Formats: sequence, structure tokens, C-alpha cells
Amino acid sequence: MFDTQGLLISLEGIDGCGKTTQAGMLQSKLEQQGIPFISVREPGGTAVGEDIRNLLLQSSYSMTINAELLLYMAARAELAEQFILPALLDGKNVLCDRFTDSTLAYQGYGHGADLQWIRQLNHQASRGRQPDLTILFDLSVKEAVQRRGTKVDRMESNDFYYHQRVRKGYLELACSEPYRFFVIDGSLSVEKQGLIVWQFVRNYIDNRSETGTGDEF
Amino acid sequence: MFDTQGLLISLEGIDGCGKTTQAGMLQSKLEQQGIPFISVREPGGTAVGEDIRNLLLQSSYSMTINAELLLYMAARAELAEQFILPALLDGKNVLCDRFTDSTLAYQGYGHGADLQWIRQLNHQASRGRQPDLTILFDLSVKEAVQRRGTKVDRMESNDFYYHQRVRKGYLELACSEPYRFFVIDGSLSVEKQGLIVWQFVRNYIDNRSETGTGDEF
Repeated sequence: MFDTQGLLISLEGIDGCGKTTQAGMLQSKLEQQGIPFISVREPGGTAVGEDIRNLLLQSSYSMTINAELLLYMAARAELAEQFILPALLDGKNVLCDRFTDSTLAYQGYGHGADLQWIRQLNHQASRGRQPDLTILFDLSVKEAVQRRGTKVDRMESNDFYYHQRVRKGYLELACSEPYRFFVIDGSLSVEKQGLIVWQFVRNYIDNRSETGTGDEF
Repeated sequence: MFDTQGLLISLEGIDGCGKTTQAGMLQSKLEQQGIPFISVREPGGTAVGEDIRNLLLQSSYSMTINAELLLYMAARAELAEQFILPALLDGKNVLCDRFTDSTLAYQGYGHGADLQWIRQLNHQASRGRQPDLTILFDLSVKEAVQRRGTKVDRMESNDFYYHQRVRKGYLELACSEPYRFFVIDGSLSVEKQGLIVWQFVRNYIDNRSETGTGDEF
């Protein structure tokens, strides 16, 4: 376990679940309250990570799942070592728009890559640092597709059943670690979700401050 | 073990050892003799692999060893699945200008990444397929630097002691698997090395044909 005061909070969900909007709202709240944090997104957030993101999301590419998986991990390793771990050690909270669970859900549950292997890669890429809190925005695939509209990148052009498997994967992950996951109904209004997220995160941070080290999370 | 008639031959050595020249000479010989083969290089050889190669070799980048390692593995996974394994299954021999041992030597022995972790990644990326034969062109770092002259990319701008560790790593790997490795004195003339390589490979292929499946290698 890392000896740090910073909290690692990841935001997860299928494409179109509204997670990135909520990330922005949560950032505004944290800023207003003067709570120190940094915000990162995956894949990306570093020089090489953004280039990897372009490789992964460009529509002209076809690549094997194994290569895709390792590219995500390379971006994660870089982001963790360059930004996430130093910020946490510095007492800052870190908001991640996608992190380790995305790979389990998408490449594992979605594409059938071995979950145990992904967990091992996640462990190495993040240097053993798990999220303290993972907020999962759960939404039906049908609603998510409607929200996404017509802008489709390579990751979003996969079929309906693939996204069904991803959603199911996320829910299984949440069931297996209920203390880490906080699941929100992504079909609620943006404002309502924003309020729920903020209340939860605020309480989470407050409770943590009262108890000191945060090792109990 | 894969049920295949193709041989996987990798060429290894420190930068400037003359391996790529020898790869070209070996290819010419195989062509002249009508021996079916494909030739690939690492990192690269696929659409995404060549882009990864550019990321890895461009001088403007600095990245963590962990990210570098995973990028090499992504390129390897793609190359193995798209070209190497199908060719081997199709009865073709495969010549690899660098393969799994490069990562052990450079990122492992050179940069200190965990060797056991690299072996695990190698196993996954190559789907468990080890080279049947690895030709190591051994040369002192001093001679290699002299040969390289002034053209320096990111991988080649590391220090002298780093390349010493890489060379030592290669020799340790060769000692640990003497049946797989064939070590050549890279300070011999290009022609002499070419002759030795060809005689060895020719005999290796002939002996294999006589014994049938090649599973004994």
C-alpha cells in the first residue's frame, strides 16, 4: 500500500454513459471547494499516451486484441508513473476518466481477453495502486447508443452485443468489489447525477480526513 | 507446442553488431536455394507495429521503462499473430531481426526491468512460441559504437555502460540456453560471418527436414 493522503477516484461506464460530462462537473465542484486534485483521462494524458490514444482510436486501424490490450497498458504505465502516483504521494486527489476497470470491461468481458492476465498487467502498469473509489455510470446500451448519435470512432463502432458484454462486465466487477464501487443510474438527469456524485465524493473525502491515513479504504 | 514445419530464427545483438546486414545476406541465400521464408523486423512489420516503432525510436520522447516495455510487447503481439504464427503454420520459415531476447537484453539487463515479468510478457505476446534458433552476433561495445558512426536514434543514444549490460545480458541468455543460441564473433569480416551463418542455418534446416517434425528442437 502506498503511504499517501491522496485519493484515487476513477470514473467508469460504457461509451455514451455521460461519464465525461460528470467528470467535468465533479472537477468544478472540487475547484470551488479548494480541494487539491488533478484530472487525467485514459488512454492519454502524457506525450506518448496521447500518441497511443491516436493509434487506438483511429478508424483506419485493425489490430489484434492482444496488441490493443498492451497499448492500453503502455499508456497506463506512463500515466501512473508520470502523474498519478506522484500526485497521490503529494497529497493531491486524482480523478481518472477511465482506469484499470475499463480494460477488464472492454478487452476482458467485451473481447474475451483473459481476465487474470489483464489483472496482472493492471497491477504492473499501475504499480499495484488500485482506485480507492470507482464511480460506475450504468446505462442501457440502447440509451447510450442514442446519446452517442453519429460520431463514431473505432472503439465505438463495435456491435451492440459487444457493448452489452462490456456493461455486464462492469456490473460484475461492481458486485465483486462493492466497497470500492459506487454505481449510479446513468439514465437520471445530468443535474441529478451530478448532485449524487458530489454528495458521495464529498462525504467520502470528509470521512477519510477524519480517520487520518485513509489506509482503511 | 505448435504443430508446424516452419522454423523461427531470430537474429540478435547490440546496436551496430552487423545483424541487419547479415539478415539481408541470409535472406538472399534462402531465396537462391528456394527455401520458403518470410522476414520481419522488430519493432515493426505491421501497420500498428511501424507506428509503435516510430514512437519508440523518435528522439524527442522520454518515457518510462515500463511503458517502453509494453509498447515493444504490443508490437510483438501484433507481429506474432498477424505474420509469424500463420507463416510457421503454413510451413514457412521465419527470420526475425530481433525478437523476445532483445527485450530481455535491453529492457531487462540494460534498464533493470524485471526479467521474470518480461518472460511472462514475451510468452503472452508470442503466444508461447519461442525461437527455434537464435543467432547472436557478439561484438564489443567499443567496436559497435565505432561502426554506428554518427547516426543516433533514441535507442542508440544511451550510454556506453548501458550497452555493456545489454551485451552481457545477451551472453548470459546464450549460456542459459546453449542449444537454442548460436553465438558468432561479430568482429569477423562480413563475408566470413555470412559464410558461417549460412553453413549453420543450412545444416540446421537439413537436419530438421531429415528428422521430420522438428519438435525435438
